[in-house]
Amino acid sequence: MDKLLYGAAYYEEYLPYNRLEKDVEMMKAAGINVVRIAESTWSTCEPKEGIFDFSHVTRVIDAMEAADISVIIGTPTYAVPAWMVKKHPQVLADTKEGRNVYGPRQNMDITNPDYLFYAERVIRKLMECTAQRKNVIGFQLDNETKSYGTAGENVQKAFVKYLKNVFDNDLEKLNHQFGLDYWSNRINSWEEFPDVRGTINGSLGAEFQKFQRRLVTEFLAWQAKIVKEYKREDQFITQNFDFEWRGYSYGVQPEVNHFEAAKYVTIAGADIYHPSQDLLTGEEIAFGGDIIRSVKQGNYLILETEAQGFPGWTPYRGQLRLQAYSHIASGANSVMYWHWHSLHNAVETYWKGLLSHDFAENDTYCEAKVIGKEFKEIGSHLVNLQKQNRVAILISNEALTALEWFRIDADPANIGTVRYNDVVRWIYNRLYRMNIECDFLNPTSEHFEKYDLIIVPSLYAAPEALLHRLNQYTAQGGYLFVTFKTAFTDEYVKVYSQIQPAIINECLGIEYHQFVFPKNVYLKSDYYQMPDLPVHTFMELLIPKGAEVLASYNHYNWKDYAAVTKNHYKKGIAVYLGCMLPDEILDIVLRDVLKDAGIVQTQQEFPVIVRKGKNDFGKEIVFYLNYSDKKQKITWQQEKGIELFSKAEIKQGEEIEIEPWNLCIMEI
Amino acid sequence: MDKLLYGAAYYEEYLPYNRLEKDVEMMKAAGINVVRIAESTWSTCEPKEGIFDFSHVTRVIDAMEAADISVIIGTPTYAVPAWMVKKHPQVLADTKEGRNVYGPRQNMDITNPDYLFYAERVIRKLMECTAQRKNVIGFQLDNETKSYGTAGENVQKAFVKYLKNVFDNDLEKLNHQFGLDYWSNRINSWEEFPDVRGTINGSLGAEFQKFQRRLVTEFLAWQAKIVKEYKREDQFITQNFDFEWRGYSYGVQPEVNHFEAAKYVTIAGADIYHPSQDLLTGEEIAFGGDIIRSVKQGNYLILETEAQGFPGWTPYRGQLRLQAYSHIASGANSVMYWHWHSLHNAVETYWKGLLSHDFAENDTYCEAKVIGKEFKEIGSHLVNLQKQNRVAILISNEALTALEWFRIDADPANIGTVRYNDVVRWIYNRLYRMNIECDFLNPTSEHFEKYDLIIVPSLYAAPEALLHRLNQYTAQGGYLFVTFKTAFTDEYVKVYSQIQPAIINECLGIEYHQFVFPKNVYLKSDYYQMPDLPVHTFMELLIPKGAEVLASYNHYNWKDYAAVTKNHYKKGIAVYLGCMLPDEILDIVLRDVLKDAGIVQTQQEFPVIVRKGKNDFGKEIVFYLNYSDKKQKITWQQEKGIELFSKAEIKQGEEIEIEPWNLCIMEI
Amino acid sequence: MDKLLYGAAYYEEYLPYNRLEKDVEMMKAAGINVVRIAESTWSTCEPKEGIFDFSHVTRVIDAMEAADISVIIGTPTYAVPAWMVKKHPQVLADTKEGRNVYGPRQNMDITNPDYLFYAERVIRKLMECTAQRKNVIGFQLDNETKSYGTAGENVQKAFVKYLKNVFDNDLEKLNHQFGLDYWSNRINSWEEFPDVRGTINGSLGAEFQKFQRRLVTEFLAWQAKIVKEYKREDQFITQNFDFEWRGYSYGVQPEVNHFEAAKYVTIAGADIYHPSQDLLTGEEIAFGGDIIRSVKQGNYLILETEAQGFPGWTPYRGQLRLQAYSHIASGANSVMYWHWHSLHNAVETYWKGLLSHDFAENDTYCEAKVIGKEFKEIGSHLVNLQKQNRVAILISNEALTALEWFRIDADPANIGTVRYNDVVRWIYNRLYRMNIECDFLNPTSEHFEKYDLIIVPSLYAAPEALLHRLNQYTAQGGYLFVTFKTAFTDEYVKVYSQIQPAIINECLGIEYHQFVFPKNVYLKSDYYQMPDLPVHTFMELLIPKGAEVLASYNHYNWKDYAAVTKNHYKKGIAVYLGCMLPDEILDIVLRDVLKDAGIVQTQQEFPVIVRKGKNDFGKEIVFYLNYSDKKQKITWQQEKGIELFSKAEIKQGEEIEIEPWNLCIMEI
Repeated sequence: MDKLLYGAAYYEEYLPYNRLEKDVEMMKAAGINVVRIAESTWSTCEPKEGIFDFSHVTRVIDAMEAADISVIIGTPTYAVPAWMVKKHPQVLADTKEGRNVYGPRQNMDITNPDYLFYAERVIRKLMECTAQRKNVIGFQLDNETKSYGTAGENVQKAFVKYLKNVFDNDLEKLNHQFGLDYWSNRINSWEEFPDVRGTINGSLGAEFQKFQRRLVTEFLAWQAKIVKEYKREDQFITQNFDFEWRGYSYGVQPEVNHFEAAKYVTIAGADIYHPSQDLLTGEEIAFGGDIIRSVKQGNYLILETEAQGFPGWTPYRGQLRLQAYSHIASGANSVMYWHWHSLHNAVETYWKGLLSHDFAENDTYCEAKVIGKEFKEIGSHLVNLQKQNRVAILISNEALTALEWFRIDADPANIGTVRYNDVVRWIYNRLYRMNIECDFLNPTSEHFEKYDLIIVPSLYAAPEALLHRLNQYTAQGGYLFVTFKTAFTDEYVKVYSQIQPAIINECLGIEYHQFVFPKNVYLKSDYYQMPDLPVHTFMELLIPKGAEVLASYNHYNWKDYAAVTKNHYKKGIAVYLGCMLPDEILDIVLRDVLKDAGIVQTQQEFPVIVRKGKNDFGKEIVFYLNYSDKKQKITWQQEKGIELFSKAEIKQGEEIEIEPWNLCIMEI
Repeated sequence: MDKLLYGAAYYEEYLPYNRLEKDVEMMKAAGINVVRIAESTWSTCEPKEGIFDFSHVTRVIDAMEAADISVIIGTPTYAVPAWMVKKHPQVLADTKEGRNVYGPRQNMDITNPDYLFYAERVIRKLMECTAQRKNVIGFQLDNETKSYGTAGENVQKAFVKYLKNVFDNDLEKLNHQFGLDYWSNRINSWEEFPDVRGTINGSLGAEFQKFQRRLVTEFLAWQAKIVKEYKREDQFITQNFDFEWRGYSYGVQPEVNHFEAAKYVTIAGADIYHPSQDLLTGEEIAFGGDIIRSVKQGNYLILETEAQGFPGWTPYRGQLRLQAYSHIASGANSVMYWHWHSLHNAVETYWKGLLSHDFAENDTYCEAKVIGKEFKEIGSHLVNLQKQNRVAILISNEALTALEWFRIDADPANIGTVRYNDVVRWIYNRLYRMNIECDFLNPTSEHFEKYDLIIVPSLYAAPEALLHRLNQYTAQGGYLFVTFKTAFTDEYVKVYSQIQPAIINECLGIEYHQFVFPKNVYLKSDYYQMPDLPVHTFMELLIPKGAEVLASYNHYNWKDYAAVTKNHYKKGIAVYLGCMLPDEILDIVLRDVLKDAGIVQTQQEFPVIVRKGKNDFGKEIVFYLNYSDKKQKITWQQEKGIELFSKAEIKQGEEIEIEPWNLCIMEI
Repeated sequence: MDKLLYGAAYYEEYLPYNRLEKDVEMMKAAGINVVRIAESTWSTCEPKEGIFDFSHVTRVIDAMEAADISVIIGTPTYAVPAWMVKKHPQVLADTKEGRNVYGPRQNMDITNPDYLFYAERVIRKLMECTAQRKNVIGFQLDNETKSYGTAGENVQKAFVKYLKNVFDNDLEKLNHQFGLDYWSNRINSWEEFPDVRGTINGSLGAEFQKFQRRLVTEFLAWQAKIVKEYKREDQFITQNFDFEWRGYSYGVQPEVNHFEAAKYVTIAGADIYHPSQDLLTGEEIAFGGDIIRSVKQGNYLILETEAQGFPGWTPYRGQLRLQAYSHIASGANSVMYWHWHSLHNAVETYWKGLLSHDFAENDTYCEAKVIGKEFKEIGSHLVNLQKQNRVAILISNEALTALEWFRIDADPANIGTVRYNDVVRWIYNRLYRMNIECDFLNPTSEHFEKYDLIIVPSLYAAPEALLHRLNQYTAQGGYLFVTFKTAFTDEYVKVYSQIQPAIINECLGIEYHQFVFPKNVYLKSDYYQMPDLPVHTFMELLIPKGAEVLASYNHYNWKDYAAVTKNHYKKGIAVYLGCMLPDEILDIVLRDVLKDAGIVQTQQEFPVIVRKGKNDFGKEIVFYLNYSDKKQKITWQQEKGIELFSKAEIKQGEEIEIEPWNLCIMEI
């Protein structure tokens, strides 16, 4: 990328009156250099079956071209027009809850042949009229694609076909792996294969969900292939990946395998939404960014992030700017808002854009003008930042799905509330606040050895090969930090029948046969100094088999069991954490692991967030982001550096002040 | 009306054994002079299709006639018999949740031709045998009529026809007003118009709900027309309107436009249920009464209110009587209990009547005897009370519905809990407790100018014309008090794209571009003296454009914005409240507005409630209602007056004591 | 029974690899002498329609025979194979929520002819190959049988047939009893009888639920008849009854009439699951045991109870053993775990058996070895224990169901949370903690007179005859203790229209017309000394009619009403409790009743639980169970006794120490 992209989604179709010219003028004033258009506008592009009208699209491209603003074209396929549903009701996905209804977006069966026929046609038509446009720099396939729970008869058939392939046509093997004898679920002929929507078998159910993720990958691959027929060499293909949604971008996406799907795009993209005002921490920006950077091991696009957003998200002074640089600090090459103007109708009326419904200048837009100006001035120092992180976190869609079937705190009365992403974010957040930057690995990654420390949170479902690889990583001198609920089942969510944690116990030097929910359980340790706070949620009763006990449980009945262990295994070290801890204690455990693994820890900690990278000039860039409403001071430790906003040269020992919700950027 | 009606719903059909004679005797002993019968008894009146049996009805009319008790006949159409559903399953409404099931009342499609055919026939038959009876004084159409969510294919078709009419057959206009381009919802031909049950478009959805309210009006108009063919000149037609239900009568009814529907009755009626015992405040009695009095600008009937009700409602000594007079004090000409006796089977078993299941005298019935006696003695002084209120509150079904689609505190994780009626009741309750009596206006009212002060709570959706009228009202010397969330969208729930609050900003002298959820936000003001309590729920960031700032926000980031403003506009004054406040602070703001608008405030405040009216003798009647378990004293300020219960003449300066849960009534 | 059975459910079908030999070895080591097999394995036993394969069953019988371990065969009918659903989708029950889906167990229509055809065939085939096996000691019919909400067209038809029979074909009588005139629910011909799934009439609805319970009895009777054709005289038939489930075995089973269904088995069986660790009290073990012992008035089998169970249930040291003896102390002749090994797949993965997924020895299994050894040594002293309790609690499915339709704390906004079993367990738990052992009676029991004290908690729905019998029981010298919500409706959930509590007011000497939810209500009493704690949930306003007032209400409005009364009625005494009380006050009331009724109270109280019985040697056995983590001491009061574990003779006045979660057993 030759510059930082700064932009917004722009829907000229939705405007209450014609104001394209005025909008372009305000965009220019804000330094906006890219807009994303067309996604989700199918009913406007193809008002009647086979009748196409791309006038909105071309009007906008024209206007942007005139203003020297780039355009990203989104294929409009993630919301189907009324005429299609009227003619082919079955384009609406048949899910576990029944047939989806018309009205919302993302309600279709992405495997339905009619849907695919129309989707292909509209994509081709759109590509024909946009691909050769000079200022069109890239294409976004669909949007936040999922399988939308599609599980109708056709999908069930495809799933059976998929299973035949996975199990070499061997039903006995499938019955065995999934444990289908249980509750008379055994399937004795492929013809009798039941609809799995009602299954109570987590192995079968999780496999279906893996299959559904595969449908997403296949759908994106299919769109990419069509787009490639038209696009120029210099135009990119991206997808707007998103994250587990808990009212904001929370965790690993359960419905998409980002690593697999990203193979079909030329640059990864994402949307990240997060709490704001007093709750702004930068955690989601860093977390989402680190994942998306990792899926293709390179820079990525932020295709959507909040401008004003909901009333609870309206940024305080400084926050919009702080957020923008936080994205860049994670390796993003773009910051694009969702969206330019606020919508006057429908369900996202309160998901406000840079402009409010009145299109007038407002505090947020005014701050965007500052960002745009700065990006123009110093963007060349910030684009294409490269990171060389020494710590990686191993994440897994399979573990996530399996722990949805078996939530960590499930009991006979409740399905439980503690899930995979709660553990992942629990670990990640503490590292983030210590300013330890991380990459993410997935189970099929081939570059474990790049990292000095690999952290494995609750890798509940894992194939034997992966566990052997973790042993090998440690054997070869790696440092492994593993938490409870790891290596409990194989990739088919069949609990390992050997000693637990299965296979990986070799490098960990421990085993356990039982686990409980802690009540009034504390840690005791000669190794750590720690506050007297209770263990919570879940604990395994660890028995050291060679490992050193760093902490054990303080409880009359569980006192003989270990809680945290450390094992020297060949050239490496493996630490195991058997329980969930208060943040303060996790910090102590993590700091010790980091120190032991030789990871340098910064002086600063949250609310001063430090993020680094190497820029196109080969210089090191260090961001100091003040995530608080208090002024922060840092003392410059390195020989010298240039503060990019002020161009000031900072000397060793000099003090730098960072205003509330503000930042400084050092180039060294 | 020539006397106060005192009565109960009476279902001889439901009695476990024949006790009509005994019931009449106990009614007479309690001073009951009217019963309401027949509503909901269709399966008894027409046991088989076309076979009618009104023997219960005539038996009761006979017995009441002999006892000189009047009868109100309810048409039985709000509960359909089993034979009809068996023969025509489609009489059950097809709703958003699917086809209603047989069992409950109010489950039918009020537009279904079969239902209407049978309904018309049973009404005619019933009218034939009751209309000419001497002691039948009026008719109630159906009961608590709603559309019951009917939304099946036939209703969808009718809705499209309705829309064609509203939009002059111009689909482009409809697409524009509803913003249907969004998420590919654009409708490109009337033939393709989708079922709107799944819509995510609040404009389309709210219009459908307006259409459903219209179905209710049309249904009642249709019944009224039939009834009129039979009824005598001296017999009234009424409907039992009710209110938003939150376990009791809470707020403006979302599913019925009372003002429209009331045009088809000769006197408005209502049911009001409310918390009791320690929670009895009279708020619901006053609120519901003020609305129903306003819909036809005159006296009204309380057709149902609680006797013993649920275990939590069993009245303390004095409360039944206090409640009865509270209804009268609001302008009711009747107090009728639901119901005479408690039911021995089915879902309302614990909705107890005047008599318990044992039909024995009980504390509540004994108190009813006192009320009946008093009504006979002093009722002529209390019937047909006329009010001349100077304050009106503007309410709107459209604003209510729109704020259901966009709840005030909605965020990306929650649909929100704060709704239109929460604001309406928040304001109303404070006025009630200050003893400021109010009328209610609806958007199409033509007598705004009657009032010195109009209060406009969260008039979220409003047509331009209405906003211009409010400007005009102020310009002509009116006093306007407007809250946040007013004038945000037009009547199609399309957000105004001009400066907000749209149009009405003219008289208010303010504007705003942003709004947030307050956290740790207080008010600061040189104008008011107020306690240090936080703003809550929602706040707009007001920018004065000519208005005086009465209070602004105390918060480091929002401190430059106004919270309460006052503007002199031509001959009038307009005050705007931009946020939700603790009751104590709202009181301060309201008192100031009332004083400024020249509204006289009483010395008494809750728990002493003062309500006034002019009686048939041209005398002023003042109720002093003690809503507490403590004795209250008032000092009589006027020259002299007669206390109606004691007939005592009270002189200026004399002290009147009111016992707990008791009252006195002064005639001046 | 000639010995205590100690065992587990064993599913060789579910094992991840062949380890039958190893399992048998570990079972022997643990003293296990019985396994329960085959239930729920239909798809393994009949892999294709009509193709049977009982090789797993015979393999296990063989191996157990060789090891001298007995076998209980469960018919596999409570989970249907995929092929059956594919061929006959209607075997899945059509319920109130629609057709059940394939996947879970217990989803079928137990009246469906296809299901019954296949069920009969597989049972006969299974019996053919197991009934004559030497070590097969008995058969379990199905498992935890219910009607699974079956309510489809066929069931509705059968219900109408049933009603014709109940009401002598007299629809008028039915309409009257159920009060169907209400809301036009009257049914005027049998042909029009509506599907009752949507009914709002609790009388009709409760009758349907009674009919559904009858389907369960009929189904079990039908299976018993088939099994009897094959079984030897020495083989028993049992059923695994269970209890209202609230995440553990909580209360009276709503869906099965245990007393009726148990007529078709030769010995009653049950599963009991309960909280553990710090929450282990023994309450559920005693409660469930007392019920199951009562249904056939004799010893019973614990066919399932938890071993390790969920993480929250993993027993502390000593608890597994304490639990085992607690079952025996209630009259169980077996303790069988669910299950031997933990499952590696599907929904019960975390319902852990004696062995964890790794099949290794663990703390729980090790404790089982101790139990097995002890059972062998002293079991002959503990088997076939006979009890002669003087206190009985009257329970009723009909009252339970009726109070589901009318929950005790229901109000117009909430269906309520306080249910029948909350009252039953409230009373039972206090008695349990006082070491008062109870039997349970059902409404049709013929041996009321065996008991000195009958306790009647909230017998809401009761036929007149039953109430007359309670009067008679008292008249003849019995002591009756009755709580609020008794005798309110007849057996058709029609509220009695006479004075309440109906009929039984005769022996109680009270009446009431009103009842309320207490707020700030306390008791006042000259009779009791009690702490100042508030009455909660529900209270009746009692008026003494001959009864002595033991306590009345302390509240300004309810102060004239009684709360607890005592009445001498002919030769007996009847105490009535009109409200729900804090445990501390209930204890005071109960202790007084017990004393008055001449029931001897033990010195020990919870956490020392005392349970007694007479053994085969005619000796009295007394268990002292320490349900706490503190050591407990008891002083031996009787002349002498033998402590069974230590064989020590204990002399009068000697002190016995019981370790935490431990016990001692005295033989006298």
